[in-house]
Amino acid sequence: MTTKLWLVLLLAAFMLGALANSQSSDGTSALMKLEGEFMHAAADHGSQGYLSYLADDAVELPNGHAVLNGKAEIAKTMGFLDNPDNHLFWTPASGGISACGDLGYTYGSYEFRSRDKDGKLASAYGKYTTIWRKQKDGSWKAVLDMGNAGQ
Amino acid sequence: MTTKLWLVLLLAAFMLGALANSQSSDGTSALMKLEGEFMHAAADHGSQGYLSYLADDAVELPNGHAVLNGKAEIAKTMGFLDNPDNHLFWTPASGGISACGDLGYTYGSYEFRSRDKDGKLASAYGKYTTIWRKQKDGSWKAVLDMGNAGQ
Repeated sequence: MTTKLWLVLLLAAFMLGALANSQSSDGTSALMKLEGEFMHAAADHGSQGYLSYLADDAVELPNGHAVLNGKAEIAKTMGFLDNPDNHLFWTPASGGISACGDLGYTYGSYEFRSRDKDGKLASAYGKYTTIWRKQKDGSWKAVLDMGNAGQ
Repeated sequence: MTTKLWLVLLLAAFMLGALANSQSSDGTSALMKLEGEFMHAAADHGSQGYLSYLADDAVELPNGHAVLNGKAEIAKTMGFLDNPDNHLFWTPASGGISACGDLGYTYGSYEFRSRDKDGKLASAYGKYTTIWRKQKDGSWKAVLDMGNAGQ
């Protein structure tokens, strides 16, 4: 091969490496920002807002219940988000992303505010992990969501 | 650029694409196999076996407790694996991996077999998610582990 060809390939490899590094750090911040948008979608549009951030093949691992496979199955359990007394807040603590920017995760804490049996507002606290996969159209969707108790 | 150069670049792009695709499917199986080795390490060598599969900066999100940040903090809670009455089994159901093969996840179900207060063997069941990151030495380590109740 010619020297020019080697130089072009070397430059391409260098640019790919630099791109991968910049995606690692910026990518995690982007996912944490996305997590905020996800929460606002659920707050403003209830279950439909929540579901719009899920991949069709997403899995949900709810605490105390069996795995839910696929968005359609998850949708059946998300009606509580349409009750105006229920408010779900979550805050990412940290996360990570692949070097090629196609898979990432965020984890953090949540607060679920609702009315108790006496009609008083009460909060339950817990933790969550969300795994994100970039879709063919370039958008990020959650492919796995899991929650448990305790902050 | 010359036609030859374009052809070489096209071939390189094609090979990277093929590599990424093969890593996506084979990679998930490799992580599920790794999950089995992880479990055997914990069964054979207790807490030290378990901890040998964790990255130094791993986070643990235990059900009912606060987040544990880093392997050293996690290590303080893993002594129960050194009690010969305690047995932790887990089986991955599925998972995923990044196209560039540096980040992946597995999730599935676990059984924790122990003795109850009357000394009888009893099992508790639950689910888990593990997020894996390939390390600089080429080994995979868990960077996040989370469990909850119900299978």
